[in-house]
Amino acid sequence: MSLTAGEPREVVGSREPEIWRMLQRVQARVTRAVEAGLLVEHDLALASYDVLARLAESPGRRLRMNDLAERVLLSRSGLTRLVDRLQRDGLVEREACAGDARGLYAVLTEGGAVRLAEATPTYLRDLRAQFTGRPEAGELRRCVAMLDEILPDPG
Amino acid sequence: MSLTAGEPREVVGSREPEIWRMLQRVQARVTRAVEAGLLVEHDLALASYDVLARLAESPGRRLRMNDLAERVLLSRSGLTRLVDRLQRDGLVEREACAGDARGLYAVLTEGGAVRLAEATPTYLRDLRAQFTGRPEAGELRRCVAMLDEILPDPG
Repeated sequence: MSLTAGEPREVVGSREPEIWRMLQRVQARVTRAVEAGLLVEHDLALASYDVLARLAESPGRRLRMNDLAERVLLSRSGLTRLVDRLQRDGLVEREACAGDARGLYAVLTEGGAVRLAEATPTYLRDLRAQFTGRPEAGELRRCVAMLDEILPDPG
Repeated sequence: MSLTAGEPREVVGSREPEIWRMLQRVQARVTRAVEAGLLVEHDLALASYDVLARLAESPGRRLRMNDLAERVLLSRSGLTRLVDRLQRDGLVEREACAGDARGLYAVLTEGGAVRLAEATPTYLRDLRAQFTGRPEAGELRRCVAMLDEILPDPG
């Protein structure tokens, strides 16, 4: 099949790009909704919430900076800037790893734990609405149906 | 239930955060894999590929800058910088909208269409591998199973 300038899709008969773009749209929509609630009601960026949440669920409320960067899907330099800000706000502290040359820990402060606890109901309310509301859940259901078609059987 | 510092999850009994984080990891992984192939084999960033692809599938190979920004999920200022670069490389041109005060079009050039056609097999190969490979597809299948549980029935 030859494609002309007016052809509506450059990739005919391929579902993966369509599914991936739907997933990207869903994620952009969920991110916008959840971040808006956190900013308006708690003056907290979503990336900051994610850092506080990952620390809170870790033993001793601490993680190595490299491990934390991996879990919140930030570059190491992006995380360093974010932790600078959280430290100025008193939500996170840095601690050297005793007997471990591999670097620094980020540690959740008591103030950070309080801030996280305050923001979590908002986070959950807005996140759940994106999975249960209409038409939000409809788009996710279409993604699931298309993924069901193309994913190989488990096992 | 009271949560202590050692508690592994701050949100007990809630699946939405877990599913959303899995979807974020999947998207980060797919993005990294597809972008790596495009950069290494075609010296093309994924965002550039997306712009060329959205223009190619549009009537007259053109889109208003605002519409294009929405489709590639970039801010208007981010798209402006990207289109500046694509224009310097001869892949995209800007055109004023005749009789339309609402702004500029971005238009795919012949060189841009050729570059897109060269890169698309790489894009599809790497994207499909993320949906069909193991363990890649396994994580997506777990996401699908969890979404099946929590999404409301269609209708």
